[in-house]
Amino acid sequence: MALSDIDRLIQLLAKLPGLGPRSARRAALHMINNRSALMTPLTEAMAAAAQNIRTCSQCGNLDTRDPCAICTDPKRDLSIICVVEDVADLWALERTASYRGIYQVLGGVLSPLDGVGPEDLNITALLGRAAQEAVREVILATSATVDGRTTAHYITDRLAESGANVSVSALAHGIPVGGELDYLDDGTLSAALKERRSI
Amino acid sequence: MALSDIDRLIQLLAKLPGLGPRSARRAALHMINNRSALMTPLTEAMAAAAQNIRTCSQCGNLDTRDPCAICTDPKRDLSIICVVEDVADLWALERTASYRGIYQVLGGVLSPLDGVGPEDLNITALLGRAAQEAVREVILATSATVDGRTTAHYITDRLAESGANVSVSALAHGIPVGGELDYLDDGTLSAALKERRSI
Repeated sequence: MALSDIDRLIQLLAKLPGLGPRSARRAALHMINNRSALMTPLTEAMAAAAQNIRTCSQCGNLDTRDPCAICTDPKRDLSIICVVEDVADLWALERTASYRGIYQVLGGVLSPLDGVGPEDLNITALLGRAAQEAVREVILATSATVDGRTTAHYITDRLAESGANVSVSALAHGIPVGGELDYLDDGTLSAALKERRSI
Repeated sequence: MALSDIDRLIQLLAKLPGLGPRSARRAALHMINNRSALMTPLTEAMAAAAQNIRTCSQCGNLDTRDPCAICTDPKRDLSIICVVEDVADLWALERTASYRGIYQVLGGVLSPLDGVGPEDLNITALLGRAAQEAVREVILATSATVDGRTTAHYITDRLAESGANVSVSALAHGIPVGGELDYLDDGTLSAALKERRSI
């Protein structure tokens, strides 16, 4: 017997991250019970997104325009490039509304175990952009994981080799805002101590 | 500024049960990065479901056919009606593959606090079906909550009044299969003791 419309919907919903078989069933029922308020608008939004969203050829961001809204924003400081692993990290930084430079999305981190080498990331594009006269600083905003740090080290070396006239920086380590010392891991606490600032 | 396609997609995804703003963003990115494998098939499945799925006019189940596949299945025992709160509960019972009768979906439970009265549930339809010659038993499979029990009591009274010649039963209380006594709440444990069976 062919898969029914409901089963097929549930099966596809269960492929979304964060949804298992049980929550996919709940989501499917919720959609079917709210057809005009949710299911139809969501279907249309998905069709529009699938058709209109493309990857920015300059920075790797996702947007309906190419170059993206950030790369073409005249208020943005084109002299600072912030290097992020993926678009989710770019969005996270944008939500802080405290960064006014531009971005370079790597598309991942170096990971020998997963077979991800430098040629799989947008590092050549980054080096080309960093070599431009106007660029003064590259901020390495990769994760504080082993792979993220390795990637940051590798990019620092490549930037130095390339002779690009940029300063390279990384995000500060320290106590999360609102965090209690007692619950903090030793690595973060010692980093916060080492990078203490005078007030 | 108009909401961008991505923001609109995320906003609508966040309305699904089980997805918050963060997981909706992850789901949207995952979809955009897997357009042909996931986003397009899901869009099509949603459109097909929105168009084809209807409520069974006999039992209240959701299906592409009306009457639904369960009501029209010649292998089903039409003499037993199992009363469930909603379609999710019907699916849960179907997954056990241990019930071969038919169903009546109430569409909720009696809940004075939420303003749900008997006229908001499919109780009249149930009484009509229970009055048929062929029906011998009505199984009340409402939840073991206060509202679920109240609804079961109400239906039992109405069935008695109606003079329908049916036996009324309810799901057994007891120890969940695989459950450890030590972790069980007192109510379940005393119900399991009271309803003990000889072996």
